Amino acid sequence: MKIPPVKGTRDFYPADMAVRNFIVDGWKKVSLRNGFEEYDGPMFEYLKMFQIKSGDEIVEQLFSLTDRGGRDLALRPEITPTLARMVNQRINSLPKPIKWFSVPRLFRAERPQKGRLREFFQWNIDIIGIDAPLADAEVIFCTLDYLRKIGLTADDIVVKISSRKLLAVLLEMLGIPEFQFEDIYALLDKRAKLPDDTFKELLNEKIDDPDIAERIFQLMGIRDHNDLDKIVGKYLDGWKEQSMVQVLEELHFLFCYLDRMGVDKRFLEFDMGIVRGLAYYTGTVFEIHAKNSELRAICGGGRYDNLLRDFGGPSIPATGMGMGDCVLEILLEEKGLLKKQLPTRRLDYFIACVDENYKDATDATVSLTMKLRSAGFAANFSYKITKLGKQLKQASEQNARKCIIIGDEFKEHKLAVKDMTTGDQTLLDYDEFLSGLDTG
Amino acid sequence: MKIPPVKGTRDFYPADMAVRNFIVDGWKKVSLRNGFEEYDGPMFEYLKMFQIKSGDEIVEQLFSLTDRGGRDLALRPEITPTLARMVNQRINSLPKPIKWFSVPRLFRAERPQKGRLREFFQWNIDIIGIDAPLADAEVIFCTLDYLRKIGLTADDIVVKISSRKLLAVLLEMLGIPEFQFEDIYALLDKRAKLPDDTFKELLNEKIDDPDIAERIFQLMGIRDHNDLDKIVGKYLDGWKEQSMVQVLEELHFLFCYLDRMGVDKRFLEFDMGIVRGLAYYTGTVFEIHAKNSELRAICGGGRYDNLLRDFGGPSIPATGMGMGDCVLEILLEEKGLLKKQLPTRRLDYFIACVDENYKDATDATVSLTMKLRSAGFAANFSYKITKLGKQLKQASEQNARKCIIIGDEFKEHKLAVKDMTTGDQTLLDYDEFLSGLDTG
Repeated sequence: MKIPPVKGTRDFYPADMAVRNFIVDGWKKVSLRNGFEEYDGPMFEYLKMFQIKSGDEIVEQLFSLTDRGGRDLALRPEITPTLARMVNQRINSLPKPIKWFSVPRLFRAERPQKGRLREFFQWNIDIIGIDAPLADAEVIFCTLDYLRKIGLTADDIVVKISSRKLLAVLLEMLGIPEFQFEDIYALLDKRAKLPDDTFKELLNEKIDDPDIAERIFQLMGIRDHNDLDKIVGKYLDGWKEQSMVQVLEELHFLFCYLDRMGVDKRFLEFDMGIVRGLAYYTGTVFEIHAKNSELRAICGGGRYDNLLRDFGGPSIPATGMGMGDCVLEILLEEKGLLKKQLPTRRLDYFIACVDENYKDATDATVSLTMKLRSAGFAANFSYKITKLGKQLKQASEQNARKCIIIGDEFKEHKLAVKDMTTGDQTLLDYDEFLSGLDTG
Repeated sequence: MKIPPVKGTRDFYPADMAVRNFIVDGWKKVSLRNGFEEYDGPMFEYLKMFQIKSGDEIVEQLFSLTDRGGRDLALRPEITPTLARMVNQRINSLPKPIKWFSVPRLFRAERPQKGRLREFFQWNIDIIGIDAPLADAEVIFCTLDYLRKIGLTADDIVVKISSRKLLAVLLEMLGIPEFQFEDIYALLDKRAKLPDDTFKELLNEKIDDPDIAERIFQLMGIRDHNDLDKIVGKYLDGWKEQSMVQVLEELHFLFCYLDRMGVDKRFLEFDMGIVRGLAYYTGTVFEIHAKNSELRAICGGGRYDNLLRDFGGPSIPATGMGMGDCVLEILLEEKGLLKKQLPTRRLDYFIACVDENYKDATDATVSLTMKLRSAGFAANFSYKITKLGKQLKQASEQNARKCIIIGDEFKEHKLAVKDMTTGDQTLLDYDEFLSGLDTG
């Protein structure tokens, strides 16, 4: 009986697994060097938990299941609700700030498309307990630290930064009623994908006063946060009010810190079109995009100061980032930064046996291989005793540093050890080789 | 709104994650040094796929879900069906033998109990394409290689080995009809948990001839495979028939190879009570148990030569092992082999800033931390500028090797670098320290 895999899922054959490990291990390594601690939660939670942050529409995108007790559960589509639950459970005993990362496997019951699968991995970093732009800057730094490490440059990617608080203050100052905010956010979010004319048209549909619509259009064109004061001043009455001064100051601090952190200015762009779909962002928001590309955002994040409270905990500031593996992998492939053949094995030793008639030789092959493994070395042998050339090829395919040949010389208790890089071959006494292992 | 986690799942706070990583990373490391390649499959498959190997009763133990298209899916309760599917999909292009490992997260919709959760991790190793006891021996060697590496000795654990083929030949020779085999397997499987009297009673219930029941009772007492010939000869007529000779030879080879592999005899025990619940084993079967313990088996495995064929592929021999994390963790804790406080962070540098009034100092702290991270070092700093003693405590809690102190001396462009192990402190020029990093 032959059964196919489920659409939108992936089989990770060793070569695919090597790519997944390359990405995920990189996430882990950079998180650790940036001082984050790893956590994880269950793969499923109560269905209603996912509705708190994302509303009822999320249910459509969930794989839901019930347990024997008839409880409604769902596979996690994101880990932030779990993070909020876990932090709230131990809010008093956890030392602050909480700097945590996770590389969860997540699920979305969507129609699979390019860069969006039903099952994927996502890197998450979060700093909880710090209400300062320095924490937002550290999140952005850490994200870029990873992307730079794997070879992406300011020619490849750009961090688009905005502030949800700025957007709210701005719309308020322009006299737009609050019930319209979400509707307008949704339009601004599409700005990058729309031609100027279409965008203006849609703006005018939503906003009665064409003058206000034009001001929003101009403000949306700002790309340098240093122009903010001037341009905001030009298009916004009363922009020196406390709320606006504060939000501009926060943005300035954010860019200042990024500068001090050594982030090349060419990576950074101010863009009020960055809104982020989720309702829960409260301050700085950012996305990283591939330049000159049709790809979705590589990652997104920002400040979410109300989330822990919404999950029944105290009001504690938080900021974070999430990056999936699917878009990233496509980009890395496009840029030639993914080695086509990442090794699925790396051996210290391959033990070749070339004397199949001599029983002691085959025994010695097995015995020596296991001795090497027990001593901590990666070692492998061939189940089939073939010609030396074929076994050397196997050794090379398995990325062995050295190949030990057990052949005629073994009758005199000697091993030929071949360096697979240089090709040099030396004859060593079996016992001496073994006793030298610990020091090697 | 406060929502609890689902029963039978686990939250992995950083300290728990450190334990999970200790176990899972160990599995990975030992698999790689034993020459296995890593693979993984999707977290869910078509429900019917899990019925092929385990029958309809598995459905009771599955978390099932449906996708938008109404297809019946299930969270994987084991990875072997996925392995069979994946291998069959590429049977012609995969080089043989296939030596693969995986550390999948698995799910069972059971009532949670000690050592059995609804969500757990399982180490799987499999060798596909080799029909020889050497492969079974390698699987056992690799499993023991891990258990020995984490500190378990022959005083702690025992590998109980049997053969499903032996059991089948034996029952056949005793004249027991084949339709009774499964029923008797189920009873033999419980042997270790039953007092002699109860076991005999149950045997007699199932087997009409008390003499045959007695013979089975005696055979079940064999603990040394070297006694097999004698004892089997004593209790079994016609034991020199080809089928019995062959199965005894296979067992002898298995134990011989384990000896050549350097496995201490004290680890090994022959025990026909090892049946393994699953119907799919065809030859050697084994379980590893904690000695003098009420715990379930730590792991189990064996030869399953029909599985690929049952999944619509060709008839290819295979042998493997699966080990869950829950029983293992309990045992390691009982034996004192799990460090209570595995570090959740390890830093190369903690950067302490002790001059909060001197703005350049705080800037330098951030700047230096990020420089160190970019250069590949794990570095962290404190968001709160507290007294030096408190920051040194933080450095120590975060397992920093060195603490860099930015204080008064920084006005002369100098850093104090404290070795956290020895306590030694040296004053270094900032630029010299940075330029020395690459070589350090």
